[in-house]
Amino acid sequence: MAARFVPLQENCMSDNTAQPPLSAGPAAPPGLAGLAITPADIEAAAARLAGVAHRTPARTSRQADLRSGAKLFFKCENFQRMGAFKFRGAYNALAQFDAAQREHGVIAFSSGNHAQAVALAARLLGMPSVIVMPTDSPAAKLAATREYQSGQRASEVVLYDRYKEDREAIGKRLAAERGATLIPPFDHPHVMAGQGTAAAELIDEVGPLDKLVVCVGGGGLISGCAVAAHARSPGIEVIGVEPEAGNDVQLSLAAGRIVKIGTPRTIADGAQTQAAGALTFPVIQRLVKRVVTVTEQQLVDTMRFFAERMKMVVEPTGCLAAAAVLEGALDGIRGQRIGIILSGGNVDLPRFASLIAE
Amino acid sequence: MAARFVPLQENCMSDNTAQPPLSAGPAAPPGLAGLAITPADIEAAAARLAGVAHRTPARTSRQADLRSGAKLFFKCENFQRMGAFKFRGAYNALAQFDAAQREHGVIAFSSGNHAQAVALAARLLGMPSVIVMPTDSPAAKLAATREYQSGQRASEVVLYDRYKEDREAIGKRLAAERGATLIPPFDHPHVMAGQGTAAAELIDEVGPLDKLVVCVGGGGLISGCAVAAHARSPGIEVIGVEPEAGNDVQLSLAAGRIVKIGTPRTIADGAQTQAAGALTFPVIQRLVKRVVTVTEQQLVDTMRFFAERMKMVVEPTGCLAAAAVLEGALDGIRGQRIGIILSGGNVDLPRFASLIAE
Repeated sequence: MAARFVPLQENCMSDNTAQPPLSAGPAAPPGLAGLAITPADIEAAAARLAGVAHRTPARTSRQADLRSGAKLFFKCENFQRMGAFKFRGAYNALAQFDAAQREHGVIAFSSGNHAQAVALAARLLGMPSVIVMPTDSPAAKLAATREYQSGQRASEVVLYDRYKEDREAIGKRLAAERGATLIPPFDHPHVMAGQGTAAAELIDEVGPLDKLVVCVGGGGLISGCAVAAHARSPGIEVIGVEPEAGNDVQLSLAAGRIVKIGTPRTIADGAQTQAAGALTFPVIQRLVKRVVTVTEQQLVDTMRFFAERMKMVVEPTGCLAAAAVLEGALDGIRGQRIGIILSGGNVDLPRFASLIAE
Repeated sequence: MAARFVPLQENCMSDNTAQPPLSAGPAAPPGLAGLAITPADIEAAAARLAGVAHRTPARTSRQADLRSGAKLFFKCENFQRMGAFKFRGAYNALAQFDAAQREHGVIAFSSGNHAQAVALAARLLGMPSVIVMPTDSPAAKLAATREYQSGQRASEVVLYDRYKEDREAIGKRLAAERGATLIPPFDHPHVMAGQGTAAAELIDEVGPLDKLVVCVGGGGLISGCAVAAHARSPGIEVIGVEPEAGNDVQLSLAAGRIVKIGTPRTIADGAQTQAAGALTFPVIQRLVKRVVTVTEQQLVDTMRFFAERMKMVVEPTGCLAAAAVLEGALDGIRGQRIGIILSGGNVDLPRFASLIAE
């Protein structure tokens, strides 16, 4: 039986962080010992999400196949509830709160999809949520987060000035005042396991794959997906994709330790993380073959491809994995069966319009 | 056994038009006698299309349900091959050509989705296609049509000046020269039966419906869908939607005969037909409860809704049915189960960008 030591997350407040259950699941496959999650955690997450999260479609495109020389399967998490895979991890985490945690609710910091994911999951589970967002968040994201909280007691969006205020201090104060539990955006085993259900569904639907290509921000999605993919499709190669401007995980793999970079300038806002997590990075080291990068222009071209040929809105971060495959950043793919996770579709409409009109 | 008298289409050249087989299928349900197609024709079309056309997803949206007060099921023909339902009818028609017809190939007139549908279906079936398009067709549509024809012997796009030349004369000359068969865009039983498979798939997937809402151009889609829907979901109400500026079928139903109007000015280019067909109109009279209209602004608002909330590109014509439901043009829908056909997603990207950015 694999020991599952789960260290505290560095970006969590230790007192109020949801802890994974200590009961050990079924034996982990070889090579997974010591990692934060096992295939059994993904199965348990899938059971919690059944009937709550969308089983998003896996789409194919002859144009994309012609262009890449491979057989591509796109997992459409842009069609997930609240518009991104983040709902999977947030719901899987909140669904495991005990009675006291549910009573006092959840706190999350996010200007992105994690905010909306936690707000929606909390409402569905009948608990309060406090989402801490910067004052300069896009109005549409603020509105969407408040909409997901609507009618939920004691739920609110707390704004802070990211240039003047310390969000950690705000979080500590709120957590102390309310006894609420912080759920971080990626570095948490329940979040990671929830995200992995996307890859599990894809392979269950389309069969074994040669490669699975996944965008990398903090590593929550790719770590969960890597565990799920290796369990379901032995021998699969899992490949990460970062924006060229924000290749911290590529650097980290080369260095053999977590490398922190300045906030990257990229349109892929979901990949603007400065470093992988203490829980996600070991999974990436063990199960991800390599990380490649794509340029901003390749992201825009891929976004246009999706709109024009596949009639879908995919946000810039959601285009990372596909851009690597369609724009030639990956070699050795000819004739292969390749899964591609499209992570989300939440992009402001005027911004989307201006990007595709270029 | 229902007699199936199929009159010649008024917009076909009689000598070279593909004729439906005269063998009678299973007995038609009551009320369908004398119509151009029966439920058995839809089943036969579905068998021909199996593994060739996409079984497009039926999507749902909580936002759309909240807004309408009904439970909505969107049939995503924007994800169909070549981007619209038209592939179904074209392939179903061409697949029934005999050896001589296949040798000499197909002719179609179209500046829209029918052109691409016939070009693609012909290539898949290994026959030549001649597509007659106006010189001022959008460059993207010309390019797409030629792309679908590529590598196919004797296939070409023939351009004509719609202000100076007579396309009927061009068609007659080409048909005589080549012995090719004309497939009209809607007024043909094989085309109508093919289009009906969209509704058949939707109801097979989601179960019986109270209403099915379908856009109306020449009536090929709604007539096929009405036959399929009444056979699968007895008591269903089939409702047509036209742009306010081009309500010829609404006028025709009121008049009890086919009313022809001037070419309507609307962004819904697939509904710019001037009159329903001699074969489609009797089906609409018999099986369509009523036709409602929506404004241009409602189409734009609906297109934006799909992009923002459902992460999909839907062309203006494809928004007609949804606009009627989401913008309040239909009463008596509260609590009902409603199917909505999204007919296609082929809209030039710059145009799409400018419409959603408004």
